[in-house]
Amino acid sequence: MNLNAQWIVGFVDGEGCFHVGINKNQKMKLGVQVLPEFTVVQHQVDEQVLHALKDYFGCGVVRKNHGTRLCYRVRGQDNLLDRIIPFFEKHQLKTRKRIDFAKFRKVLLLMKKEEHLKPDGLEKIRQIKTSMNSTTLS
Amino acid sequence: MNLNAQWIVGFVDGEGCFHVGINKNQKMKLGVQVLPEFTVVQHQVDEQVLHALKDYFGCGVVRKNHGTRLCYRVRGQDNLLDRIIPFFEKHQLKTRKRIDFAKFRKVLLLMKKEEHLKPDGLEKIRQIKTSMNSTTLS
Repeated sequence: MNLNAQWIVGFVDGEGCFHVGINKNQKMKLGVQVLPEFTVVQHQVDEQVLHALKDYFGCGVVRKNHGTRLCYRVRGQDNLLDRIIPFFEKHQLKTRKRIDFAKFRKVLLLMKKEEHLKPDGLEKIRQIKTSMNSTTLS
Repeated sequence: MNLNAQWIVGFVDGEGCFHVGINKNQKMKLGVQVLPEFTVVQHQVDEQVLHALKDYFGCGVVRKNHGTRLCYRVRGQDNLLDRIIPFFEKHQLKTRKRIDFAKFRKVLLLMKKEEHLKPDGLEKIRQIKTSMNSTTLS
């Protein structure tokens, strides 16, 4: 299955999610780990679409999600900064996910500067995260 | 907002629905009305995307759905046969919605031949409807 860039944008406008997790992890300097991820969830009958996304972006994994659902998931600063973010910079989302993407991108750029390892930077990331995936356009 | 055909296909692969309603209606010859409709539901913050779809297809309405959700909805044989069906014949869906679309198209072509006004044709439509929007690829 060959995917077209605009098809991907439309599909991600519908089904994609840009998420920033902040999880307790005592191995990390500040006691928390910042875990940004890009995901697309589908029913298992459409597993091939998730694999086509994985092939297109050349990164990520297809994993079981809940019940009969599967998830295409990309983690890791390199994958996100080198592959996912440039794609959506070039091909703009049309729904409110454009705003989530912009915030997600901001978090990744802070992480690139290792801001997530400093208290002020981590606080900045927390604030961005709190404003994401809501249904107000701020 | 200008929409690209491939973006629409991706978005409908995610969020669209091809549905055939069969409702009791004593005004109709066989006591039922066959009501095919194409819908796309979104949170109200993305109302503009639904209006852009309406502009693109040149038919349908944007209406309140449940709670904070809005729906772009196309009904009517002419709209569906002249605008929606040719679009998805030309631009193939990639998920299982391709199969729902093929069945939806079959129902519309039966209706065009007025088969829904005959007992045999109506039964055929009922059978097609039963097999739609399920998660098995038959």
